[in-house]
Amino acid sequence: MRFYPFDRAAGKSPDIDLHPQLARDCLWLGRLAACQVLLMNDSRYPWLILVPNQEGLADFDLLPEALVPMVWDDIRQASQALRTLFQPDKLNVAALGNVVPQLHIHVIARFQQDAAWPRPVWGCHPPLPYAERALREQTARLCAALGVT
Amino acid sequence: MRFYPFDRAAGKSPDIDLHPQLARDCLWLGRLAACQVLLMNDSRYPWLILVPNQEGLADFDLLPEALVPMVWDDIRQASQALRTLFQPDKLNVAALGNVVPQLHIHVIARFQQDAAWPRPVWGCHPPLPYAERALREQTARLCAALGVT
Repeated sequence: MRFYPFDRAAGKSPDIDLHPQLARDCLWLGRLAACQVLLMNDSRYPWLILVPNQEGLADFDLLPEALVPMVWDDIRQASQALRTLFQPDKLNVAALGNVVPQLHIHVIARFQQDAAWPRPVWGCHPPLPYAERALREQTARLCAALGVT
Repeated sequence: MRFYPFDRAAGKSPDIDLHPQLARDCLWLGRLAACQVLLMNDSRYPWLILVPNQEGLADFDLLPEALVPMVWDDIRQASQALRTLFQPDKLNVAALGNVVPQLHIHVIARFQQDAAWPRPVWGCHPPLPYAERALREQTARLCAALGVT
C-alpha cells in the first residue's frame, strides 16, 4: 500500500490491518475520529473509503454503540470535504462489502457527466488509476480538506 | 402506491410525500422512529428502504443533527429484522439517490446465491415483483419483525 505524503516518515501507517484488496486499490490518507480514510485510486470519481477502527467487523449495524456518533461524524466530514472541493451533483454513501468483508464505507462524489451516471460506480468500469502528478495533487487537497496530515 | 395490510383502514398512509418512483416500486410498511419503511417489490432480494421524515433532503450528511441518532436506530432495526428473518450472508446499506433525489436508504439482505452476487443489486436485473400471496406473507413477517402495524 502507498501512503500520502509519499515521503511520510517511517512508522506512519494505518492503525488497523486493512484487507489486502483495500490496501491494493487505495491510498491511505490518514485517520479521522473513528476511521482510517483512504482514497480509491480511480481517477474517474473523487472517492473516499472509511474503515472503522474495529477489527473483525463486517456490517454497519454491528458497529459498537460508542463508535456510532464518531463514525457518523467521519461520514459527514468526508462528505463535506468532497462537497467543498468538487461541488458534486450527488454524494453516494454505501457499506456493501460483498467482495471485501472488512467493514468499509464508500463516500463518492458523483456528477451527471461521470462515467457511470446514473448507475452506481461499482462494476461499471475497471479503475482508471491517477497519473503520478494528479495523484499527488488529489491527495494533497483531500488531506487538507479533511484535516489529516 | 399500495399499502400493507391491504385492508388497512382509510387514512393510514406515509407521513411524508414519497417520490413517485418510490411510490411505484415499493410498498409502504409503516413508520419507524424517524423514517418511513418501504418494501421494494423485487422478490429477488429482501429489500427495505428507509425514507427519513424530512422533506427536501437529498444527502445523508445533511440530515439534521437531531434526526441522526434516530435514523441510525432505524437502520439498525431494519438490518436486524432482515438478519433475524433471513440469515443473509451480508447486509448492504446505501444512500445513493442518483435517480430518485429524495433521501432514501437501502437496507438489503444479500446471499451468495442471489441473482446479483457479488455485484450490487442496482441495475443488475429489472425487478421481479412478488406474487400476491408471497407479497402478503413477506409484508406480514417484515411488519411483525419491525414492530410496525
